[in-house]
Amino acid sequence: MHKSAYFEFSTDFDLAVIGAGVVGLSIAWRTARRGLRVVIVDPDPGGGATHASAGMLAPVSEVTYTEEPLLRLGLASLERWPGFAAELERDSGLRVDYRTDGTLDIGYGSDDMAQLDDLAAFEETLGLRVERLTGRECRKWEPMLSPAVRGGLLARDDAWVNPRRLVTALCAALTRAGASFVAARALELLPEGVRLAEGVLRAERVVVACGARSPELLPGLPVRPVKGQILRLRGPGGFLSACVRGRVHGSPVYLVPREDGEITVGATMEELGFDARVTAGGVYELLRDAHELVPGVAELELAETAVGFRPGTPDNLPLIGALSPGRYVATGHHRAGVLLSPVTAEAMAGLLTGETPPALLDACDPNRFLSLDSPTAKGPR
Amino acid sequence: MHKSAYFEFSTDFDLAVIGAGVVGLSIAWRTARRGLRVVIVDPDPGGGATHASAGMLAPVSEVTYTEEPLLRLGLASLERWPGFAAELERDSGLRVDYRTDGTLDIGYGSDDMAQLDDLAAFEETLGLRVERLTGRECRKWEPMLSPAVRGGLLARDDAWVNPRRLVTALCAALTRAGASFVAARALELLPEGVRLAEGVLRAERVVVACGARSPELLPGLPVRPVKGQILRLRGPGGFLSACVRGRVHGSPVYLVPREDGEITVGATMEELGFDARVTAGGVYELLRDAHELVPGVAELELAETAVGFRPGTPDNLPLIGALSPGRYVATGHHRAGVLLSPVTAEAMAGLLTGETPPALLDACDPNRFLSLDSPTAKGPR
Repeated sequence: MHKSAYFEFSTDFDLAVIGAGVVGLSIAWRTARRGLRVVIVDPDPGGGATHASAGMLAPVSEVTYTEEPLLRLGLASLERWPGFAAELERDSGLRVDYRTDGTLDIGYGSDDMAQLDDLAAFEETLGLRVERLTGRECRKWEPMLSPAVRGGLLARDDAWVNPRRLVTALCAALTRAGASFVAARALELLPEGVRLAEGVLRAERVVVACGARSPELLPGLPVRPVKGQILRLRGPGGFLSACVRGRVHGSPVYLVPREDGEITVGATMEELGFDARVTAGGVYELLRDAHELVPGVAELELAETAVGFRPGTPDNLPLIGALSPGRYVATGHHRAGVLLSPVTAEAMAGLLTGETPPALLDACDPNRFLSLDSPTAKGPR
Repeated sequence: MHKSAYFEFSTDFDLAVIGAGVVGLSIAWRTARRGLRVVIVDPDPGGGATHASAGMLAPVSEVTYTEEPLLRLGLASLERWPGFAAELERDSGLRVDYRTDGTLDIGYGSDDMAQLDDLAAFEETLGLRVERLTGRECRKWEPMLSPAVRGGLLARDDAWVNPRRLVTALCAALTRAGASFVAARALELLPEGVRLAEGVLRAERVVVACGARSPELLPGLPVRPVKGQILRLRGPGGFLSACVRGRVHGSPVYLVPREDGEITVGATMEELGFDARVTAGGVYELLRDAHELVPGVAELELAETAVGFRPGTPDNLPLIGALSPGRYVATGHHRAGVLLSPVTAEAMAGLLTGETPPALLDACDPNRFLSLDSPTAKGPR
């Protein structure tokens, strides 16, 4: 999707970022803005988990009660999003379809409603703005909702963005900033840079940001693929105005509208390794649950099915920081890669230019799993 | 999918067949075997309704009680299928995956069972071989059926074939028989042949067999597109051994297995003109009903979704025969194009070589709708 610049193997770079998903590109962009000579290495920019992402910026709705460090990180990143989006649109000259038109979290059955009530109470203890709506109020906000919808929460502060546009804009901003792209797979980290099939790419510092594939370069890194299947429906512009999340008899689903009339429906969560098949069961469940919340989706075109692999970690927190001098990692963002890109990019750009990392990122120390019984310590190289 | 031979516009043909679906190709093949110089005109051989066909050869299960002429035609064609398939495999050197491993017609709810009982009684009055099975007997025949299946009918005489292989084999047999292919759209019928964008293709006789698109060449022909959506699932070979049809709370669905492990699931029936969109609702209903009958489909890959337009007629019978000297039509086969190809091809090949058409085809006279108030009489040209 993005033309690679011709790459001179004789050139030395200050920084090589491996992985052109939203995390790697954001780091590269924020670092290039600080004047470093940056190269991004990816055989298919934007083709990984980002490609199958919905781009919801909803730290609260996504939270579970045991994950307060993740919530704090998400809220900090959500705060940065308006500035991040505006600056990126200026730098790239492109729109990223960043929207804050209200996210509805819908309850379908009575169990679902009880769960929503718990969530609302928790959000209030955190001082977050959330409004409880009746079914009728929900339908007033979003007329396409099913008459069977019993109620929901309106999160006015949650936002969403189009991840594919985000990739395009980041690539454009990087090109304008003089960064280089190499459309190749990184095969190995070397003391002097990165080994590619075509030769050695020399770079002083390397950031590994290739999501669930990161352990291929950093064996033992505790990151696993969490498969997600999504659908893209195509309808008339304005079919949905709000971002609709919901629980249908316990099963979570979301419908994220774009300004061009497309609606992303997601997403399954499957622990199946790198199984890239779109399955009948995955598509069936997404269509069933989307149809329960918004019956009118039946008339929309099923334009695309896609699979992505979220990078999961044992504690659901990302791995962001230095592994050794000149070697950095930024992965493990699981379901929150798009949301956490601003805070990740800001911290990494600081770290790469000699700043002390913010305390907020302490919980994301990539060395926290390194102990005698860790896979890294034990694992074969 | 099939390379067009270079076509010399100076060559004259005995016969031009417009439309390389299963009907047109079958007519061309049977006619070429009788020694006529045949040319087939289609921008995309096999790309029409045939591409989205399941290839079920099941005249009885498809019947409704008011349509006995269609049933008689279907039974006559089913009888011809074993010979047709064997001869085509010999002529082409290719397999068409013609199978007679038993078709199960499954009832899901009690309404569905009552409908099946009526069907069985009707089939018995016709002297057809059909066996009533309990749910347990059904699962013994096809172990992948849901435990909730209450019973069904086993039609040992019904068969099925892979329509895409059929197209490939027909094209190969035609090429071997010296027929020509022109990959172009026929724009107009002329006294001397057919007008293409590239020039005039001269042919003594022309058969219009381009399905739901036939009225573009024969304005006023009472043929309309009946949209069908199908799915192709990919699984391990032998996932299903029988062809499974069913009614799930009144909604018909079928699962047709191929020897390579693919399963065709179909099909919707929609009167929406040439709306070529795969819709969320269409896919949802097919997956839902297939899943009710065979829950294990959830684990299969959703490899393809496709749309086709069946050529429907006011009385559900095809239009087969001469319109005027040298001008013939063979379309309107609706859901039964693959089933009816042998009988259609045999009759047309006879007609084109001076034989009297069989009485069986009287009901398919293409002029039967021509009267003062018919669209042909009234319609603008």
